[in-house]
Amino acid sequence: MKFYCELKKVVDDSYDIEIGHRLSDTLINDIKNGLAGSIKKFAVVTDKTVEALYAADILDKLIAAGYKADMFVIPAGEKSKTRQMKEFVEDSMLEKGYRRDCCVVAVGGGVVTDLAGFTAGTFGRGVPFINYATTLLSAADASIGGKTAVDTQLATNLIGMFNQPKKVYIDIDTWKTLPQRQLSSGLSETIKHACLGDEEMFDYLEKNIEKILVNDIEACEYIAERNCRVKYNVVMKDERESGLREILNLGHTVGRAIETLSEYRLLHGEALAIGMTAQVRLGRNLGFISSENMNRVVELYRRAGLPVEIPEYIDRKALVKKLYTDKKVRDGKLRFVFQKEIGDVMCFGENAYGLEIPEDKITEIIEEM
Amino acid sequence: MKFYCELKKVVDDSYDIEIGHRLSDTLINDIKNGLAGSIKKFAVVTDKTVEALYAADILDKLIAAGYKADMFVIPAGEKSKTRQMKEFVEDSMLEKGYRRDCCVVAVGGGVVTDLAGFTAGTFGRGVPFINYATTLLSAADASIGGKTAVDTQLATNLIGMFNQPKKVYIDIDTWKTLPQRQLSSGLSETIKHACLGDEEMFDYLEKNIEKILVNDIEACEYIAERNCRVKYNVVMKDERESGLREILNLGHTVGRAIETLSEYRLLHGEALAIGMTAQVRLGRNLGFISSENMNRVVELYRRAGLPVEIPEYIDRKALVKKLYTDKKVRDGKLRFVFQKEIGDVMCFGENAYGLEIPEDKITEIIEEM
Repeated sequence: MKFYCELKKVVDDSYDIEIGHRLSDTLINDIKNGLAGSIKKFAVVTDKTVEALYAADILDKLIAAGYKADMFVIPAGEKSKTRQMKEFVEDSMLEKGYRRDCCVVAVGGGVVTDLAGFTAGTFGRGVPFINYATTLLSAADASIGGKTAVDTQLATNLIGMFNQPKKVYIDIDTWKTLPQRQLSSGLSETIKHACLGDEEMFDYLEKNIEKILVNDIEACEYIAERNCRVKYNVVMKDERESGLREILNLGHTVGRAIETLSEYRLLHGEALAIGMTAQVRLGRNLGFISSENMNRVVELYRRAGLPVEIPEYIDRKALVKKLYTDKKVRDGKLRFVFQKEIGDVMCFGENAYGLEIPEDKITEIIEEM
Repeated sequence: MKFYCELKKVVDDSYDIEIGHRLSDTLINDIKNGLAGSIKKFAVVTDKTVEALYAADILDKLIAAGYKADMFVIPAGEKSKTRQMKEFVEDSMLEKGYRRDCCVVAVGGGVVTDLAGFTAGTFGRGVPFINYATTLLSAADASIGGKTAVDTQLATNLIGMFNQPKKVYIDIDTWKTLPQRQLSSGLSETIKHACLGDEEMFDYLEKNIEKILVNDIEACEYIAERNCRVKYNVVMKDERESGLREILNLGHTVGRAIETLSEYRLLHGEALAIGMTAQVRLGRNLGFISSENMNRVVELYRRAGLPVEIPEYIDRKALVKKLYTDKKVRDGKLRFVFQKEIGDVMCFGENAYGLEIPEDKITEIIEEM
């Protein structure tokens, strides 16, 4: 005997990304105007670094506007992206009386937005959340795509969910307080976006990369908006990472492996810069990019203050072995995404952007670097 | 500067519920025919009790059919519905090499299907899952609605997500191995479903309840199908529990509180039977149900082998206090759902099924019971 459970529906997860300067008042006004519906309780999730800089201001303004609001602070850094930290936020929220009728406001970089977005997605089987991004990296990475996750000992970003925010605020002013190393690291994804989908943006970066490093307003606005546009074009066509979305993984095959092997001595963007360099070198050998364009990519990463060589302390053999934990591996074979010259990616068949690469081809590159 | 991220889409989460006897071969055939797409790796999640009875058979058949399959066993009982147990399953799956390209097969009762469904929903940001329900309670409770969750010290079912299975199997044969107490407990939700949405089903139960207790095939098939139908009609109209879905909470205000205070000496269905009794008694006092129908409900619960009085060891004052942790509480006021005679619920305004009840009214009932 069969019973057919029909569950078709139209889901509208659309939202605005607001790019500007000091957006906490805008945030409060949006909430007053119904951004979170009739919800009156706000859990502000942030980290130790961002707490005093930006989150306290938002908390104060929420309370002043008559809402119940509390701050939940995690330690700063990648090591906080764990299930244990998610539990800590959940238990703290429960203790403070938060139940299904609340909204999570994530104020911080990628770790905070990833963790808070995931926490919101499972708290009371899902409460709304708002992202207030305070780093270039989270502006580029966390604002579009709805990816949220935590890490485990055995895998990065493997426990999580797709969860779209109600709105994203990209406060360019916050970038001024970023350490230079963090700003450079954030630029790494930005350059990657230009490489895979926006030649004009690449040209702009070649002309203006130093301006971004000194927080030139116009240049920062430009890349914030362009980042969203490139990522949106990719993600919109494929929310679930079956095909096209894989191209966002450009440079990550080697990048992720180096990041892990460095035991997080390298920031994500730094490891990615090395991974992107490996990708263009391999791509040049395979005829996907000219030597000239390869050099342009490597040079841009270098000017952004990022490493383009594999550090001495990384064991090359261990690195090759680590590549096999990449999520693009299929049937035990390494697969890479490649940029096609600048501003496009290689396509290897219908909706197929990953190319199987023999181990010796990538070993050769790694040993040269 | 604003960037509009448009994300509208049609989602089709429809699935079949198959009701029958010994459905493991059907399950394997369905998988061969593409139930889980091209996935070839299956994580069978079960508990210590169900492992040897039904899960081992399914595991063997998956392996015999050429799939990679492993068994992940949690301890039996409500105490396994925790974040820690979810982590244990996740880590075990990761250790065995499961990544994004796998499917979770939950074989068991409500605890297993709740935990495994939630685990699948966040593993690799969501992998498909299949429910093979081996108890009457999970047939009634977990097959429709997509609710998955775990408990925490501070709240029941508050961390979780809505996640729809690819298919649900209700194997009526498995009910034969249920202890009588578990079968009775499972009947509790069934009777509730009849009370709130199906008078004909209630009449049938009055005539045939003893048949179900001795596993009469026809009677079991009947209630399995009717349970799905009632729940489907409610859930379909309101997937997110904003209004109508609240009626499934009938009897749970007092029921949940007693379940917690009994420290799980009472099974969920047993606590619900007491909660349903409180509900009809209060409803009778308020004129929502006749004394005759009230007695029919209480009598049916009694004949199902379920308690209809509050146990001596439950402190009445603590019970009243505990009611305030109910999720229907709004602005600190108790709210109850009531059945309207038999087969319908009271509606107190547009999409409003909860009625605010002064504490003394429910205290009176609790002290009488």
